[in-house]
Amino acid sequence: MTAAEVIACCRRLAQCSEEIGATTRTFLCEPMRDVHAALGEAMRRAGMTVRVDAAGNLRGVYPAAGETVRRVLIGSHLDTVRHAGAFDGVLGVVLGIAVVSRLGGRRLPVAVEVLGFSEEEGVRFGVPFIGSRAVAGTLDPVLLERTDPYGARVRDAITSYGLDTNKLHDAVLGDDALAYLEMHIEQGPVLDRLNLPLGIVDAIVGQSRLAVTFTGAANHAGTTPMDQRRDALTGAAEWIGRVERVGQEVAGLVATVGTLNVDPGAANVIPGACTATLDIRHVDDRVRNSAVTTCIDAARQIGAVRRLDVEVDVRLEQPAVPMDPELRTHLAAAVAEMGYPVYGLSSGAGHDAMIMAERVPASMLFIRTPGGLSHHRGETVREHDVDAALRVGSAFLQRIALATP
Amino acid sequence: MTAAEVIACCRRLAQCSEEIGATTRTFLCEPMRDVHAALGEAMRRAGMTVRVDAAGNLRGVYPAAGETVRRVLIGSHLDTVRHAGAFDGVLGVVLGIAVVSRLGGRRLPVAVEVLGFSEEEGVRFGVPFIGSRAVAGTLDPVLLERTDPYGARVRDAITSYGLDTNKLHDAVLGDDALAYLEMHIEQGPVLDRLNLPLGIVDAIVGQSRLAVTFTGAANHAGTTPMDQRRDALTGAAEWIGRVERVGQEVAGLVATVGTLNVDPGAANVIPGACTATLDIRHVDDRVRNSAVTTCIDAARQIGAVRRLDVEVDVRLEQPAVPMDPELRTHLAAAVAEMGYPVYGLSSGAGHDAMIMAERVPASMLFIRTPGGLSHHRGETVREHDVDAALRVGSAFLQRIALATP
Repeated sequence: MTAAEVIACCRRLAQCSEEIGATTRTFLCEPMRDVHAALGEAMRRAGMTVRVDAAGNLRGVYPAAGETVRRVLIGSHLDTVRHAGAFDGVLGVVLGIAVVSRLGGRRLPVAVEVLGFSEEEGVRFGVPFIGSRAVAGTLDPVLLERTDPYGARVRDAITSYGLDTNKLHDAVLGDDALAYLEMHIEQGPVLDRLNLPLGIVDAIVGQSRLAVTFTGAANHAGTTPMDQRRDALTGAAEWIGRVERVGQEVAGLVATVGTLNVDPGAANVIPGACTATLDIRHVDDRVRNSAVTTCIDAARQIGAVRRLDVEVDVRLEQPAVPMDPELRTHLAAAVAEMGYPVYGLSSGAGHDAMIMAERVPASMLFIRTPGGLSHHRGETVREHDVDAALRVGSAFLQRIALATP
Repeated sequence: MTAAEVIACCRRLAQCSEEIGATTRTFLCEPMRDVHAALGEAMRRAGMTVRVDAAGNLRGVYPAAGETVRRVLIGSHLDTVRHAGAFDGVLGVVLGIAVVSRLGGRRLPVAVEVLGFSEEEGVRFGVPFIGSRAVAGTLDPVLLERTDPYGARVRDAITSYGLDTNKLHDAVLGDDALAYLEMHIEQGPVLDRLNLPLGIVDAIVGQSRLAVTFTGAANHAGTTPMDQRRDALTGAAEWIGRVERVGQEVAGLVATVGTLNVDPGAANVIPGACTATLDIRHVDDRVRNSAVTTCIDAARQIGAVRRLDVEVDVRLEQPAVPMDPELRTHLAAAVAEMGYPVYGLSSGAGHDAMIMAERVPASMLFIRTPGGLSHHRGETVREHDVDAALRVGSAFLQRIALATP
């Protein structure tokens, strides 16, 4: 498979969607069957044996030369966000198959397993990583009872797809896994700005997610003098400014207020309550925790001055996940060997590699995302960069195979 | 009718509602029939002849002593906002009836007409003052074709109520109208803070309403560095702070951002677009217009610095409406005569008096609103203050009658 064929394959798969005219493919939806059929066929052509495990992950195994049971994993996810692009996730799976197909039937001292995870985006059930959690053996059984907006449970989705929740243990990785590689679009502007085709992920940043509610008093916008107001929105607005400065003042930190709910939300009523979400990420957990504290303190200070009640609800505290240092070294060597500049960066987004790292040494290779545009129909990749990933992925696989006793 | 009876009547009418357990009474809804029946009966007991005009206004006429056709109007509205209190609007109508009933059958040299306007709040059709516009003769026929959320037109609402849109001309005020008095709760905290029962409205403030949209670029909250963002929400937040300062810096000005829509509105996505509404009011139109300009300029400056597109949509420009100076003098004399402190203030909210002023000299008497709480089930009045309004309303009527040749 060439880079052009990899791209064409991704674009074809983007048509497997729950919506006409847009790519939306959530956990074990019907269009996922077409993705499994197409990629399963490609896996077989590359010499792999194929199965769909009980969590809906598509898995192809390319056998080793000898009796060894050691295996290298290459994977990413097959689900998408709503109105997605054609490359987020699926590109890494197709690249895995392409790396194997380039072996042309030649066996390595290790087996290669390509994984297409069933779920990473968290769209359908509000919880991400269902697929990789099942493989890592960290799928909380309680998760099976979660329902989608139509009342179907994760359990029901699995059964409807023709799979058996009693066989979830068969999805769990054995002790033979040596290494995990995920090739994924960067989904950010960094490589594009630096004009680099590839980046080696040093760590996946830690993330805090909070909801902060400011409560004042709703009142008539015409009859309540400015000095007698307890306006929740002006308080929230001041805080959003403070949050932005916190993000700007610390290198590598990102701090985002992505939603703001205004109650009652009428043009002629002073807002009585506002709830904002805060998303803070940094590769150093101490830096992130300190930024969270600064933002919470700022909210409380603003509340005290403005006579607003402030409530803080910490909804997520996820530590940073460093990628395996040895695998990073191998990746860097592979990048250099193929003649590309070696550049390390952290991942601001969560990825299956984060979940897999709990179980197996994990690594990630980022592919330039033109304009940093992702989670959008305009998401694209350059053929040159996909070719670079294909070459580096192949070189990496050779290196791991050679390094394995 | 005593003040206690006036209050009890308002509380009873609050049960005429489209919702169980809350007061919601929109234009010509079914529960309005019970209000018309109860107040019509009270009007008749006070010696008035009663009709409901083609715009759904309840009108009672108390005849003059002689042949004169000159009349004094006392009125307010009978509709409510959603989940309203018991006094906004209806209190002024019941007070009108009470003023007439206190005449005890004694005729004046002028007739008195009490008006219960069908619509002032604009809830059902999104346009306020349907009732008083019909009386003032300023009802745009296009308005009859507006639809409510269920697809019914104003025209249909009138017909369903058993009224005839062909007779709307009969609702228009004749040339015999001398003066209009509206007694209304202040709906703000000013009189309460000053511990005053009553206030004389010098003018109804002018109002501008705008929508301001900031458009940047939605992007991933984890992968987009702070210095590469075009965050619409941080821009809008900075602007909200500027708007607040504009309001604080100019005496008597109120400036409110009451709604803020964030798109796409996900915790992990940088907001790509934000639309805020701005409501600005002041009794001096030049001051208001200058404040509007300052706020728009601020939005454009912020947009330029932050690389955001800024779009401004001016939705309403309503000049201030001064109350009739002669009637204000009469009202002040009546207040002083009854032994209450004379205090003038402007109305931050729109009222039927604003519409009536286009046709007839108009005046307003504000009644203290404890805590400034209005448009809320907790809205209340003090018996002492209602009694003051009743005495002042009666004295005002006598003065107008005496002053009429």
